[in-house]
Amino acid sequence: MKDLSDIGVLGMGTMGKALALNLANNGFKVSIWNRSIEKVHKHAEENPDANFYAPQSYEDFIESLARPRKIILMVPAGEPTQKTLTQLSSVLDRGDLIMDGGNALFKITEMNQDALETKGIHLLGCGISGGEEGALKGPSMMPGGDIEAWEEFEPFLSKIAAEDFAGKACVAYMGKGGAGHYVKMVHNGIEYADMQMIAELVHLLNKVYKLSFKDIAEQLKACQDGPLGSFLLDIAIDVLEKEEEGRPVLELILDKAKQKGTGTWTVQEALRLGAAVPSIAGAVFMRGASMQKESRLSLSNKITLQNPKAEMTLGQLMPLLHDATLLARFSHFDQGFQLLEQANKDMDYGFNFSEIARIWQGGCIIRAEMLRPIKEAFESQGDHLLGSNYAANLIQENLNALRIITAELTKLGIPNLAYSGGLAHIEAQIEGRSSAYMIQGLRDRFGKHGFERIDKEGPHHLPN
Amino acid sequence: MKDLSDIGVLGMGTMGKALALNLANNGFKVSIWNRSIEKVHKHAEENPDANFYAPQSYEDFIESLARPRKIILMVPAGEPTQKTLTQLSSVLDRGDLIMDGGNALFKITEMNQDALETKGIHLLGCGISGGEEGALKGPSMMPGGDIEAWEEFEPFLSKIAAEDFAGKACVAYMGKGGAGHYVKMVHNGIEYADMQMIAELVHLLNKVYKLSFKDIAEQLKACQDGPLGSFLLDIAIDVLEKEEEGRPVLELILDKAKQKGTGTWTVQEALRLGAAVPSIAGAVFMRGASMQKESRLSLSNKITLQNPKAEMTLGQLMPLLHDATLLARFSHFDQGFQLLEQANKDMDYGFNFSEIARIWQGGCIIRAEMLRPIKEAFESQGDHLLGSNYAANLIQENLNALRIITAELTKLGIPNLAYSGGLAHIEAQIEGRSSAYMIQGLRDRFGKHGFERIDKEGPHHLPN
Repeated sequence: MKDLSDIGVLGMGTMGKALALNLANNGFKVSIWNRSIEKVHKHAEENPDANFYAPQSYEDFIESLARPRKIILMVPAGEPTQKTLTQLSSVLDRGDLIMDGGNALFKITEMNQDALETKGIHLLGCGISGGEEGALKGPSMMPGGDIEAWEEFEPFLSKIAAEDFAGKACVAYMGKGGAGHYVKMVHNGIEYADMQMIAELVHLLNKVYKLSFKDIAEQLKACQDGPLGSFLLDIAIDVLEKEEEGRPVLELILDKAKQKGTGTWTVQEALRLGAAVPSIAGAVFMRGASMQKESRLSLSNKITLQNPKAEMTLGQLMPLLHDATLLARFSHFDQGFQLLEQANKDMDYGFNFSEIARIWQGGCIIRAEMLRPIKEAFESQGDHLLGSNYAANLIQENLNALRIITAELTKLGIPNLAYSGGLAHIEAQIEGRSSAYMIQGLRDRFGKHGFERIDKEGPHHLPN
Repeated sequence: MKDLSDIGVLGMGTMGKALALNLANNGFKVSIWNRSIEKVHKHAEENPDANFYAPQSYEDFIESLARPRKIILMVPAGEPTQKTLTQLSSVLDRGDLIMDGGNALFKITEMNQDALETKGIHLLGCGISGGEEGALKGPSMMPGGDIEAWEEFEPFLSKIAAEDFAGKACVAYMGKGGAGHYVKMVHNGIEYADMQMIAELVHLLNKVYKLSFKDIAEQLKACQDGPLGSFLLDIAIDVLEKEEEGRPVLELILDKAKQKGTGTWTVQEALRLGAAVPSIAGAVFMRGASMQKESRLSLSNKITLQNPKAEMTLGQLMPLLHDATLLARFSHFDQGFQLLEQANKDMDYGFNFSEIARIWQGGCIIRAEMLRPIKEAFESQGDHLLGSNYAANLIQENLNALRIITAELTKLGIPNLAYSGGLAHIEAQIEGRSSAYMIQGLRDRFGKHGFERIDKEGPHHLPN
């Protein structure tokens, strides 16, 4: 009788293959499976040292697993995941465990958990971030759902995870139901905003300051070891330096940015819960606008613009750009954390915010030096990040730079919703008295909606 | 036997009362009804000239109507509307007709239409804009749904509607299903952005330029007869001038802006359909942020800001502010119309865009001089507003002003998502080559998502 495998990985796409290798590299015996079997045997052949068990059939895959069976699902969210779960639920036994490692919408995860529970099968909904490299060398993982499933998968996940700044595994139980996929969704929303910010920054330096992509990379390298240090900065430098036949690859890439949904979901959730996420929404909108290439080209041909000239030298610009980018990034994080705060109230997930900041320190796409002080702020000063001294000091020190840089981008004709949305979020939160009095006045004037007053209780109306 | 009424109005809230009076003033015999009967008799007694029929019971109300019965529902959207429709459907006969004049979500209207159809009852889902005054003196109406219901209600609606710039009634059949409520939803989204813009403008002049609200009103009066002329400008001036015991009322209004949902729905729809609505979303987010008054106050106390000084004199500012506001308003309209364009593709409503621009010329909250050239542009240059010469010229002439004003607002610390979102929407649409190449480069770098190239077909990846 053959040795049973410790765990199964179902789905041999980019992420599934990498995760299976990561498990094998950490000493686990792994069975692998895929809808089309060729990929299974190809992956096993290409990685003989991994000692994968590559079954001959679906039944063989299921039977190759030690009980209770543990299967990690690495198939695209939506129909493929739903189909696979239905299939699995008919062949697995009570007590078996599934981890959905795709980007499922949190509500679907909750539905799936309920459906599987009726068959005694435990589901862990686990957001995984880090792309192919992360999956292979150590991703950040955000599991939620069935606590028994967490306990069974924990030894595997803790071993294959990335490390945080203190050397601990970048994985922690996020909460019941769809909590894990919820946190991963918000992670991706922040990622959208941060990528959009980098695109705006590169556009400014390239289009207005006429720096080559290589020179931009050089400028950015100066920030890698400081408070702006981050994975997205590192790979931006890498991408900026890529060449093909002596030409920067970025020149050859079509300017249409695709999306898969998690950014949109984040904004939809923010709208449902009344949270403000202007730079995340801005990033989603700019991807949408980028797809209208034909309309853009046609309109750009009709309009003659004198390209405005930068008033600052590059030497004056760069330190301000550094500080502005720091605060804008903080704003993206704060938008995400405020959304998580609202979700906590709405769905009672019981999030531990400093743990979330901690497991984002390694492995994931938004890992950044800034998650060190953010984690500390949550740890020592409560769940509302903006209430921390860290936030107050960061705003105090960098607000002026963010105002100046956003104004520059604006005057120079660079669309800048990541910076301006990031700034607006902060400005709106530091105004003791906002312009909303005017909105209330107008609403009462045309619709008798009433307003509160600063000096008296109760609803009031404008005098005639 | 008593004379039967031409039509019934059910719901004696602010809007229902005004609309019933409008119908009566136009010579129709109107039965009125309300869940609590006191309101019915009070309204009839307060308006003896209207000659309302004020029934003694619900049955009496139903029996007082000439057949086929025509009932206009003026109750809040959501549960109240749903309950009332259920009640009505059990007492009405085949061939009777209901118009839902509330702000129902378009999908609910479609559901309701289907449910009523099974009983042979015709439903018209009709967005009504204009507030109390509009409902009384002439609203703008956006009906959709059952075409037979439209034909029966048309004589009433055409008589009570506001007039467009050419003297025609501000009402037209928008399309099947929820088309009418869809257009009204987008109307409200545009309204959110335009109100937020006015709030930002007032905030700038009051907070930075230290103009009194009365002086701001004087400045705005200069724009009333020009291309910026609009209902919201008119009532803003009115609100700015309101005083109580010699003090501007705006000083007394609490700066927390409430919302009822249509703005949020507009952004949710935009997200679903991939349309970009940054200033509408910005307005929704700013209302949300305004509600966090305690957190705002606490943070504002921790941060010491040197209030930046305006570089421009008021005399330099005002002409630029005028032009910037003109283009920002156009951008709000264009965001709305682009969303309608997407909805048309998705749901096959068959919108007539110049008719939509026409019926918004009178009666509704967003009525504005600008809807004259917008209607003409749709009429002569097709469904994509940005493709018109009008749009190109407006952008050419005012883009610089919008850039400068948005940059000023930004430097001066005035949150400005209506202006900056309005600008970003335009900037993104006039860039032949956007910064999205950088997003695509990053996405491929961490997730092997692939990208298109400008020079070759097919998906590509970065070189190693």
